[in-house]
Amino acid sequence: MNLYKMSARDAITRMRDSSCSSEELVTSCLKQIKFRENVVGVRAFLDEEASLNQSRQADRRMKDNNSSTPFLNWVPVGIKDIFDTRDMPTENGSVTCLDRRPEQDTLAIERLRNAGAVIMGKTVTAELAVYTPGKTTNPHDPARTPGGSSSGSAAAVASGMVPMATGMQKNGSLIGPASFCGVVGYKPTFGMIPWSGILRQAPSLDQVGVFTRNVGDSALLASVLTGRQECYSDTLPWPNLNFALLMRKDQSPSRLAFAKTPVWSESTSAAKDVFLAYVHDLKANIVELDLTEICNQAVACHHTIMLCEMAHNYESLYDEHRSQISPILLRMIDEGREISSIEYLDAKNLSAEIAGSVDHVLKDFSAVLTPSDAPEGLEAMGSPIFSTLWSLCGVPTISLPVLKGAHGMPLGLQLVSARGKDSTLLQVAQWLEDNTALPLADNERSRS
Amino acid sequence: MNLYKMSARDAITRMRDSSCSSEELVTSCLKQIKFRENVVGVRAFLDEEASLNQSRQADRRMKDNNSSTPFLNWVPVGIKDIFDTRDMPTENGSVTCLDRRPEQDTLAIERLRNAGAVIMGKTVTAELAVYTPGKTTNPHDPARTPGGSSSGSAAAVASGMVPMATGMQKNGSLIGPASFCGVVGYKPTFGMIPWSGILRQAPSLDQVGVFTRNVGDSALLASVLTGRQECYSDTLPWPNLNFALLMRKDQSPSRLAFAKTPVWSESTSAAKDVFLAYVHDLKANIVELDLTEICNQAVACHHTIMLCEMAHNYESLYDEHRSQISPILLRMIDEGREISSIEYLDAKNLSAEIAGSVDHVLKDFSAVLTPSDAPEGLEAMGSPIFSTLWSLCGVPTISLPVLKGAHGMPLGLQLVSARGKDSTLLQVAQWLEDNTALPLADNERSRS
Repeated sequence: MNLYKMSARDAITRMRDSSCSSEELVTSCLKQIKFRENVVGVRAFLDEEASLNQSRQADRRMKDNNSSTPFLNWVPVGIKDIFDTRDMPTENGSVTCLDRRPEQDTLAIERLRNAGAVIMGKTVTAELAVYTPGKTTNPHDPARTPGGSSSGSAAAVASGMVPMATGMQKNGSLIGPASFCGVVGYKPTFGMIPWSGILRQAPSLDQVGVFTRNVGDSALLASVLTGRQECYSDTLPWPNLNFALLMRKDQSPSRLAFAKTPVWSESTSAAKDVFLAYVHDLKANIVELDLTEICNQAVACHHTIMLCEMAHNYESLYDEHRSQISPILLRMIDEGREISSIEYLDAKNLSAEIAGSVDHVLKDFSAVLTPSDAPEGLEAMGSPIFSTLWSLCGVPTISLPVLKGAHGMPLGLQLVSARGKDSTLLQVAQWLEDNTALPLADNERSRS
Repeated sequence: MNLYKMSARDAITRMRDSSCSSEELVTSCLKQIKFRENVVGVRAFLDEEASLNQSRQADRRMKDNNSSTPFLNWVPVGIKDIFDTRDMPTENGSVTCLDRRPEQDTLAIERLRNAGAVIMGKTVTAELAVYTPGKTTNPHDPARTPGGSSSGSAAAVASGMVPMATGMQKNGSLIGPASFCGVVGYKPTFGMIPWSGILRQAPSLDQVGVFTRNVGDSALLASVLTGRQECYSDTLPWPNLNFALLMRKDQSPSRLAFAKTPVWSESTSAAKDVFLAYVHDLKANIVELDLTEICNQAVACHHTIMLCEMAHNYESLYDEHRSQISPILLRMIDEGREISSIEYLDAKNLSAEIAGSVDHVLKDFSAVLTPSDAPEGLEAMGSPIFSTLWSLCGVPTISLPVLKGAHGMPLGLQLVSARGKDSTLLQVAQWLEDNTALPLADNERSRS
């Protein structure tokens, strides 16, 4: 068996009973990277020897002290290149940050290291995590977009280079690529994972998340990353995720809803049919919600908040490196600079109201099913509009690779639950994965 | 003995052992109000019969079930007229809110009622809790300002009308009047007391506080008001104040500092001498801090945040009732409307940095001693500048009536501790009150 194909949890089990080592796993992943990188192009930075060294250390820790081996020991994790790392460059997908070398790890990276993970390298992000794509292609078809901005992380997991990777979204940067690449993408409730040391774009919206090839691995990785630091830090006082509790097998989920919004009419009829057939096949009593109006409000409100906060956070870039910023990002910053403080504060207030209304709707359901994206999107990285409402409200959301769209390409099913209800969300996702998943998408073309 | 002169805690003790009733206490306070109101002018609203009814109910509760009588049962509390009350008008000191009748109590009022307090009436506030004063005069000299914007609450407590009252500050609206009127004014750490249902001015700065005639009563009232509601509410996850723990008598405080900033040079030499003599008389090893630079940064930053948020929150007033707003407030709103979102976000970022630096300085000390105000202030209500840094940072602060300034008028000593260190602050304040207090200021001129 090819070790690189294993889920993180399977790998951990096998390493615990000594039927393989971290070094073997990392070696297998490095081979797969060699095999696929030329076409898929996920690499922002990779030091093979450093990865192997980490895996050897993990193997030694295991030998030295089996009982207290940390949680994620041995497992390679890919890191979106907007997370500061003390031993690798962090270039934020921008020529303005070439060979930028942060002094410290982000808190998220520190937590991964403490849990024993092998930090496998940095993955390609769109320019400053906004719109202009990097070199990554879709692992299922190099002529198609992998989605963005967390393109490299999603594609790395989909193509078997790493079993887990980190991402971030302020709009659709996580759910989009997960859907396009056919992997699980999970964004916990806003404020569950600390974002200090991660490229700051729009602090009201920035949300860290994870990519894996199954729901259980997402829950495992997120449970390592979540956790409140202290008062006035950048996390909110949500309860930590408890991996063991999360993954207990539940009976079939009750109280599901589905929502076609917000741009159903613009989706292809193939995508609509696939989604509706899936909902129908669940044979459950699923309520349809109409969220069109609130989605439209959310899009306008999200736009104002995102542009103001980006204009603010990219102010020195704008002042000092204007010629090195893409035209589309420059236009966004210019627009943000023109917005007045009262317009911004109006949008912030409206955002809190929308989030309250959405919580009110969601509280009646375990989860709402909705498309992850419009697969035939008009833009270079697909449209984030299927994620805008959820990002604005900070609700937990997960994309499951259980649908197939046009041309046999993956198509994500998005599940959404109320803020703080991550456990419920993951349990429903696990149930759907167990009972409705497609055979694992064909993410490697020839190697066997 | 005149019951109205008693501290809240003495009154509670006497009522518990049945040596007086709430009705007698409230009757005594109402008499004192009659005696002083004409000159001091604290009343925004008072229904004497309703106050007496509440006191009779409290007495009945006591008779019916002595053991589970709530915490503040019997005690009359004055309420700044920006706290919504379901059974009294809330006019916010503005003709635009004449006879405004809210449907619900604020959470703070609800907590007071649950604790058995007698809601004694509403006290005068400056126009919309900003600069233009109401009718209140200084209880120690009707020709002088009582400070503002919480003028009525401070003057009511100082003149014996109620033993306790609520206030609010976003700049110096609580510490100023406490100092001018010669009472204790205590503003807990930002976010310890919920502010929902209270006039929203500048949510990044608005902070609820209390007035009493001694430190113990302030701790008691604050402990009833504090407490986190829920995630995403308007409180932060500070631990609740524990009244019993707070008031244990400690040895003399260690690690004190003093700071003359920010406008020491503009204070009268009399005020400076009094303050320095007090610090000197403590005969403790007190470190002098120079906070001039950070204070100046804070003033600019506070100005931007306050104006933007006020312009936002008073937007509909501005649009619909411009002619009924005072010129000074109109100018502030106009200025706020001109500020861009990136300037606002810059100020918010700087504010977080300043708060971090201040925490870093304060963590080495139990408390920092500093003047509460410039008693010969140039403005109608005194200058808030001695409070700006502390309000911006959200640190807990208390003004103690332990100094006497020019013309025998009260002069507050302000104590400040790091965020979340309210217990330490109150313990130092208690020690200073026990060991250095002046005889209780002469707050009633003739009645005996």
